[in-house]
Amino acid sequence: MASIKPLSDRVLVRPDSAEEKTSSGIIIPDSAKEKPQRGTVVAVGPGKYENGNKIGMTVKEGDKVLYGKYAGNEIEIDGEELMIMRESDILGVLS
Amino acid sequence: MASIKPLSDRVLVRPDSAEEKTSSGIIIPDSAKEKPQRGTVVAVGPGKYENGNKIGMTVKEGDKVLYGKYAGNEIEIDGEELMIMRESDILGVLS
Amino acid sequence: MASIKPLSDRVLVRPDSAEEKTSSGIIIPDSAKEKPQRGTVVAVGPGKYENGNKIGMTVKEGDKVLYGKYAGNEIEIDGEELMIMRESDILGVLS
Amino acid sequence: MASIKPLSDRVLVRPDSAEEKTSSGIIIPDSAKEKPQRGTVVAVGPGKYENGNKIGMTVKEGDKVLYGKYAGNEIEIDGEELMIMRESDILGVLS
Amino acid sequence: MASIKPLSDRVLVRPDSAEEKTSSGIIIPDSAKEKPQRGTVVAVGPGKYENGNKIGMTVKEGDKVLYGKYAGNEIEIDGEELMIMRESDILGVLS
Amino acid sequence: MASIKPLSDRVLVRPDSAEEKTSSGIIIPDSAKEKPQRGTVVAVGPGKYENGNKIGMTVKEGDKVLYGKYAGNEIEIDGEELMIMRESDILGVLS
Amino acid sequence: MASIKPLSDRVLVRPDSAEEKTSSGIIIPDSAKEKPQRGTVVAVGPGKYENGNKIGMTVKEGDKVLYGKYAGNEIEIDGEELMIMRESDILGVLS
Repeated sequence: MASIKPLSDRVLVRPDSAEEKTSSGIIIPDSAKEKPQRGTVVAVGPGKYENGNKIGMTVKEGDKVLYGKYAGNEIEIDGEELMIMRESDILGVLS
Repeated sequence: MASIKPLSDRVLVRPDSAEEKTSSGIIIPDSAKEKPQRGTVVAVGPGKYENGNKIGMTVKEGDKVLYGKYAGNEIEIDGEELMIMRESDILGVLS
Repeated sequence: MASIKPLSDRVLVRPDSAEEKTSSGIIIPDSAKEKPQRGTVVAVGPGKYENGNKIGMTVKEGDKVLYGKYAGNEIEIDGEELMIMRESDILGVLS
Repeated sequence: MASIKPLSDRVLVRPDSAEEKTSSGIIIPDSAKEKPQRGTVVAVGPGKYENGNKIGMTVKEGDKVLYGKYAGNEIEIDGEELMIMRESDILGVLS
Repeated sequence: MASIKPLSDRVLVRPDSAEEKTSSGIIIPDSAKEKPQRGTVVAVGPGKYENGNKIGMTVKEGDKVLYGKYAGNEIEIDGEELMIMRESDILGVLS
Repeated sequence: MASIKPLSDRVLVRPDSAEEKTSSGIIIPDSAKEKPQRGTVVAVGPGKYENGNKIGMTVKEGDKVLYGKYAGNEIEIDGEELMIMRESDILGVLS
Repeated sequence: MASIKPLSDRVLVRPDSAEEKTSSGIIIPDSAKEKPQRGTVVAVGPGKYENGNKIGMTVKEGDKVLYGKYAGNEIEIDGEELMIMRESDILGVLS
């Protein structure tokens, strides 16, 4: 499979399928608010620089994460649909 | 129950039910202004970085907090509706 | 009475009633401009951080303050309507 | 007379009356541009903080100043209409 | 003549009259783009502060300068129309 | 062939042709979201300065990169259409 | 000929005539995107200050540069139409 190395503070995420979401206990409410999405981290960038200081990444490969519905860009590799987003678009890590 | 570790300066909050609000003495006025909401902190992130300095969190698990009506994202875990927001969306702590 | 500890550089203010305003000598002109409001500081936050430096608060409990008409959030505690705003929304202190 | 201590880098200004403007030699042209206004500084704040450095005030009580037409907030004290604005809204000092 | 001391990084400019422009060799093209204007520096402010560092002024009294058409504020002193603008609105100095 | 040296943190990219995209396994989904594009880095700038610190470049000549659909400027050199964009517009590097 | 010394990080550019563009191998595509323009640097400013650090200029007199279509201001000196823009509006240098 072709692989992607995210740049800066970006994170590559494999979104959960609709089936997985239902069985996991995380149910997205049907209100008018922006709803978080769930997936698994596939790859992380090296971190970004802020005023000359490198800010390391908090999430790591394999983490189950929640992210906003409109976060990031969709890409498709070998027929699989992935998401690439900034770490700041990730709301939390499931444990 | 599945648990969530908030990232950066985010806070996971369990909103008060409508009943609790009425009995608590905090009543949201019906004016046209943005109205604060009330809930209990369930989990806090590690804090954010600002120009290489880590800014610690002020609120902690168990704090009763007020927050803006349009703050944060709704999530539902094991059938319970929670909120995840940045600490800067929290207006104050009730004591 | 339930009390609120403001976060960061926020200030809890008890607005003057309409009667008090008239007798105090501070009269809001009826022009099209944003008009300042008047009230008394009830509680102040610990101050905010800016690039790792803590910025202390200037106003203190009991100060009579002027603030913009659209500043802050309304909250109601034990039937009393209060305002919670950032110190930067406060224009000046009356003496 | 009730007095006001401006916060941060704010300045309290007593605007010139229309009569004074005409006799002073400063005449506001009637073009479509934003026109500066003229007044006298009544009180100044202590200055603002920028990244932990205090920035002192340049104008002082008694200075005749020019400011933009849409700068600041109007307030009325003891029947007198004053303006409260940030020092950065002041264009220049007349001498 | 009443004089004005500009604040911060502001510059007081006496615009060239339409006649001077034609004879100087600087002709403003009649395209749809924002067109620079030309004038002579009458007075300069002391410079601005940026994160606690004072940034000195580059232009000085007597400099012939080019500036954007929509830069600054018009003022009129003793019947003469002047412009007050930030140094960053000045595009270049003619020599 | 005329060559271009990008300034600051800009990157010159030769976009993949439509044919290459299909055979590579990277297929752009037809959703309403902004879709990433793919190409090869032809030249990179020296990096940008941030508060006096030089931030080096991460991508290098020959890298296969993904970038947003609306990133950068199109240029045509010797009949070939290239893209010039900031490194921050690049989402990831393919490997 | 009257000459202009650009301020700060500005660059004075003599745009290529339409004829030169065609013969140079750089052809602007007719898509809906913002199209870069080409010209020769005539004069450069001394550089800008950022938080007290002087940022030197990268381009120099004589450089052939590409810049965005909507960058900068047009000026006309001795009947010749020039452009004055910030160095950050320059996309790259031709070599």
